[in-house]
Amino acid sequence: MEVPVVQRVLKVNDELAGQVRERLRAAGAVAVNIISAPGSGKTTLIETVLPLLRDRVRVGVIEGDPETSLDAERISQHDVPVVQIETAGGCHLEANLVNRALDSFSLEELDLVLIENVGNLVCPAAFDLGESARVAIVSVPEGHDKPAKYPRLFKDVDLVILNKTDLLPYIPFDRDLFKTYLDKLQPGGSLIETACPQGQGVQAWADWLASVAEGAPARKA
Amino acid sequence: MEVPVVQRVLKVNDELAGQVRERLRAAGAVAVNIISAPGSGKTTLIETVLPLLRDRVRVGVIEGDPETSLDAERISQHDVPVVQIETAGGCHLEANLVNRALDSFSLEELDLVLIENVGNLVCPAAFDLGESARVAIVSVPEGHDKPAKYPRLFKDVDLVILNKTDLLPYIPFDRDLFKTYLDKLQPGGSLIETACPQGQGVQAWADWLASVAEGAPARKA
Repeated sequence: MEVPVVQRVLKVNDELAGQVRERLRAAGAVAVNIISAPGSGKTTLIETVLPLLRDRVRVGVIEGDPETSLDAERISQHDVPVVQIETAGGCHLEANLVNRALDSFSLEELDLVLIENVGNLVCPAAFDLGESARVAIVSVPEGHDKPAKYPRLFKDVDLVILNKTDLLPYIPFDRDLFKTYLDKLQPGGSLIETACPQGQGVQAWADWLASVAEGAPARKA
Repeated sequence: MEVPVVQRVLKVNDELAGQVRERLRAAGAVAVNIISAPGSGKTTLIETVLPLLRDRVRVGVIEGDPETSLDAERISQHDVPVVQIETAGGCHLEANLVNRALDSFSLEELDLVLIENVGNLVCPAAFDLGESARVAIVSVPEGHDKPAKYPRLFKDVDLVILNKTDLLPYIPFDRDLFKTYLDKLQPGGSLIETACPQGQGVQAWADWLASVAEGAPARKA
């Protein structure tokens, strides 16, 4: 009973995502969909990269959370346009929510819209938001097994970020096994290691986002 | 269109959960539903507490994951009966999956069934599994804001564990603010702080589980 409804929801979402993508294209902008577990550092990675993008790319940010506007408040201190989507307990963002959030921007004045999805490694993976690229973040404390356990997400992203590498000395994280799991899902996929307090990897993250804003890589979907 | 179907799914689940609870009661056992984000340390907290329960409570473990049996393999080394539920990408456990998993145990030989839910702070909160008590785990690296962002879960648990407190020196985690957020949702709720490598809080965790196995506290639902 449930499955056909879910498929219909996904179909409607995919159509709307196509409209979002076209709306962004017409305005000369692209979106990046950022997915991770709760507390992997999505907001911090956005906060840290914004200063490095300031003279290169005009950025707007959409923040997704089940409740609160805590993240939008953090981003708003960086002098970029930001919209909070509160999903009222919902476990993922959908294209219609993103489409409405875009109404709050002057899209012609943006090159790149960063969409921080709801903290969840499962449900967001199924919903195209009209993005041109998708990023998955894992933080070191979560453990090296996450790609193996959540393959639906990790096999279909354009970039994986391994965040909080500054905690590697304190945690039994097997970096080789992590890469082995990733490689099985996505041979030769892009991986950037970051530690925000030290600024490690943040320039590579900025360069990657700038390259997406300039039109590469295009998302297959 | 989607909402009535979701409500029907929840209603069927609640009925099945009642049957699971009755099945456990008839066998003289209770279940505990353990929920957290991916990588908060659910499996490690189970592994660490099992030796402390060995002479007090007969334990069985159900492991839920979207893919792999990695966690069940870890638990099986502790000489307790364990069943892995692979949800094939599903974002939460449901009562019918638990009911089938119980078939693998000799229930009369158990006092306590620990159910490790799928790593997800959103969806599992909506599904009663027939448990007598529910535990939410947050680990320090996830940040102090998690109760505020995921209130649906944290307002309705019998115990909160703050795990990985050994990482507090390396991470800007505001413990007072964390407790303030929790208290707003659940004034006077139970909180145990744990650090598994040091064994901190593990005895309190064992005592709490033993008290549930002995019949207290009863879950309101």
